[in-house]
Amino acid sequence: MADEYDYHKMWGDLGMDVEAHDGLLGVVGEMYQTMFLTQKNRPASTSYLDGVAANLHSGRIREMVDGRSEGNPKKIIGSFCLYVPEEVVTAAGAVEVGLCAGAEWAPEDAERYVPRNTCPLIKGFMGFKLGRVCPYIESADLVVGENTCDGKKKAYEQFSKLKPMYIMDVPHVRNDDTKLQWRHQVHALAARIEEETGQKITEESLRAAIKLANDKRRALQRLSATRAADPVPISGLDCLLTVQAAFMDDSARLTGAINQMADECEKRAAEGIGAAPKGAKRILYTGTPMAVPNWKLFNIIEKAGGVVVGEECCTGSRYYKDLVPEDGATVDEMLDDIADRYLNIQCAIFTPNQGRRDDVIRMARELHADGIIDASLSFCTIYEMEAFDMEKAAQEAGIPYMHLSTDYSAEGDGQLTTRIQAFLEMI
Amino acid sequence: MADEYDYHKMWGDLGMDVEAHDGLLGVVGEMYQTMFLTQKNRPASTSYLDGVAANLHSGRIREMVDGRSEGNPKKIIGSFCLYVPEEVVTAAGAVEVGLCAGAEWAPEDAERYVPRNTCPLIKGFMGFKLGRVCPYIESADLVVGENTCDGKKKAYEQFSKLKPMYIMDVPHVRNDDTKLQWRHQVHALAARIEEETGQKITEESLRAAIKLANDKRRALQRLSATRAADPVPISGLDCLLTVQAAFMDDSARLTGAINQMADECEKRAAEGIGAAPKGAKRILYTGTPMAVPNWKLFNIIEKAGGVVVGEECCTGSRYYKDLVPEDGATVDEMLDDIADRYLNIQCAIFTPNQGRRDDVIRMARELHADGIIDASLSFCTIYEMEAFDMEKAAQEAGIPYMHLSTDYSAEGDGQLTTRIQAFLEMI
Ligand code: SF4
Ligand code: SF4
Ligand code: SF4
Ligand code: SF4
Repeated sequence: MADEYDYHKMWGDLGMDVEAHDGLLGVVGEMYQTMFLTQKNRPASTSYLDGVAANLHSGRIREMVDGRSEGNPKKIIGSFCLYVPEEVVTAAGAVEVGLCAGAEWAPEDAERYVPRNTCPLIKGFMGFKLGRVCPYIESADLVVGENTCDGKKKAYEQFSKLKPMYIMDVPHVRNDDTKLQWRHQVHALAARIEEETGQKITEESLRAAIKLANDKRRALQRLSATRAADPVPISGLDCLLTVQAAFMDDSARLTGAINQMADECEKRAAEGIGAAPKGAKRILYTGTPMAVPNWKLFNIIEKAGGVVVGEECCTGSRYYKDLVPEDGATVDEMLDDIADRYLNIQCAIFTPNQGRRDDVIRMARELHADGIIDASLSFCTIYEMEAFDMEKAAQEAGIPYMHLSTDYSAEGDGQLTTRIQAFLEMI
Repeated sequence: MADEYDYHKMWGDLGMDVEAHDGLLGVVGEMYQTMFLTQKNRPASTSYLDGVAANLHSGRIREMVDGRSEGNPKKIIGSFCLYVPEEVVTAAGAVEVGLCAGAEWAPEDAERYVPRNTCPLIKGFMGFKLGRVCPYIESADLVVGENTCDGKKKAYEQFSKLKPMYIMDVPHVRNDDTKLQWRHQVHALAARIEEETGQKITEESLRAAIKLANDKRRALQRLSATRAADPVPISGLDCLLTVQAAFMDDSARLTGAINQMADECEKRAAEGIGAAPKGAKRILYTGTPMAVPNWKLFNIIEKAGGVVVGEECCTGSRYYKDLVPEDGATVDEMLDDIADRYLNIQCAIFTPNQGRRDDVIRMARELHADGIIDASLSFCTIYEMEAFDMEKAAQEAGIPYMHLSTDYSAEGDGQLTTRIQAFLEMI
């Protein structure tokens, strides 16, 4: 089927630079081969992930875009942040996809819009847009941004020249005023998405959307819980990809597949079958999000003989740890419930943000981590700043800790590997 | 009088590192000599500024600290941002002083609290505190921070371990919700300062405080208006120092002195007497604030034969261009008026921030600028990001524009001078 379909035509129709995109696909495919497919003792159910990776820019786009060109076009809403509630988007009959970029592309072009000293994630999405190599960006009807970090907040002023955007204002402290303000923001988003899709959010559609997202979260929670076992039944790389996939794949399909992975991993845990040997050094990751195909840190850790047993980040536990109450009676009540759940995401834009440190220490204990690796993308002020208190929290808890700063280039990888090897030996 | 008073004892009593501080004073004194006292054709009334500079760490601290040790101690409230309303502080019987650092100090110490890649202003105030060389920081009873840029917001989590702090939450967009929220923040600050001083804010004290701050602004507006003349009656360096002084000196004294400078400059303008020759290339500065003793950029511009005729920044027009209404009937009404006036400060933390560009173009025209120099402190994401649209706005207005990124070290000064000379020749 995939063979018959002309993906090059689809990419061209989306306005993409098809030739450059072929190059990108080649590089990412090779990375996937080297990093994922060389892993030993993977659960069989991770074949789902291989499928997601293979279809990311082809089959998945096709099903979204094909759907769109029929009678009732499904709108595609892009976002760059966990703060944009998918329930609202789903309930209005659209689909939300993540647009964060995990690779560098066309940096010279990006630097015509944002400074050189910009976090690679931001520079990445500017470059992906300007180089026209991301089918998610190109197929999105509307992009919802958010006032989180300084970099994204101001980069959206530029990005909105290239794509239709709507911006949510995210608070930076939690108090009565900002709780109310954030609820208003979620209600306003609902109105904006309804306007985009021409479809009203109803009690039924919103309740179903909440259930759909919660089911996904419950599946991811199940899978995560299996990682407390030693040997750990599944690698950090594969688990990272489950959440990365969640930003792009169909929710129901993903939930089914993750539950199968959880089934298999529960069985493996009971039988003592591991993706890494018993006694492998166990790492809890915390830090900035890792967008596809930013797999390098996990790959380095696991190729060096360590194993990542948990991720306290937006492409990790923050994505699935909290559910939205399912008993809201009215649309307004459910929207408020959604707002309150999202306001509790422990992003470093908040001050103070003690909850994140508590989560990290709790997770490190529950998952029996031997050490914590806290990594920030270069020039990410908020996460670099939090590293100082994170280190203190780890010290107080008696858990070895290392902070790293990385970007998307392979330049510093040698040094990174050396540091990580030394850390694994030390703990 | 100054000779008899033992300033070393005062500094020591404040907990300062007296020896290191002597070194700092020596360096700054020398800079002042080289940059300010070598200027030709200064208005005689700038002798006030020389006095401020000479007394900055000695006489001015003495009068604040001496006052404090008497029966009715006057509290000293430190701040790092234009967003902390001085009227509120004054009305509660305290004095507000600016703590922004315009020089690097103890960077290795600072890097134990904030990342290496931090804007020099933030690294500066961390270093000044850790090195114990700033009498304003040391004598402050309370420091009021604000959630503005990512860097300051998170650095305050560290600074608050070193000094008692209170944080105001500043919005990043202007809408009905944030207007209300910011009013609440101003009311809450009033309560917090009242608690600190034990003195109630009354209708009378608040009205007087508003008048006091407005009088200062009116004086600075008068002085600024004289800079439209060619030849320009006063240098940019001296005008920069007037606003820097306003963050530290007694308001009534400063207002009197600035009005004298305005009188003299109005006269000079009428008589065609300039601080720079007629026809000197006229520069409008815009960008990040310049704290004492960060004079280098203005010094380079003016030593190269240009002259700065206006400053669109927090140590410039933003400080004085807008007044607070003087007809508020009640304390609550006046606090709301204050909040609304401050919410209108065109800081780059806001998105969108078109008002800043409008101000820059308007000022460039009113002050007959030949070119705009837009400078950001290194790693200041928000101002670096705004430079892209600022450049476009200047282009559209047909005004030559240059963007610079600088820090506090003298390392790049040679290159900076070359670029500025080239820009002055080109325009
Ligand atoms: S780290 Fe913060 S800003 Fe980034 S995606 Fe997560 S919640 Fe959003
Ligand atoms: S990694 Fe940091 S700087 Fe980059 S987009 Fe996320 S929060 Fe912003
Ligand atoms: S530039 Fe912005 S954050 Fe800095 S002092 Fe001015 S208002 Fe405050
Ligand atoms: S110069 Fe920029 S980064 Fe530095 S404190 Fe001011 S707004 Fe923040």
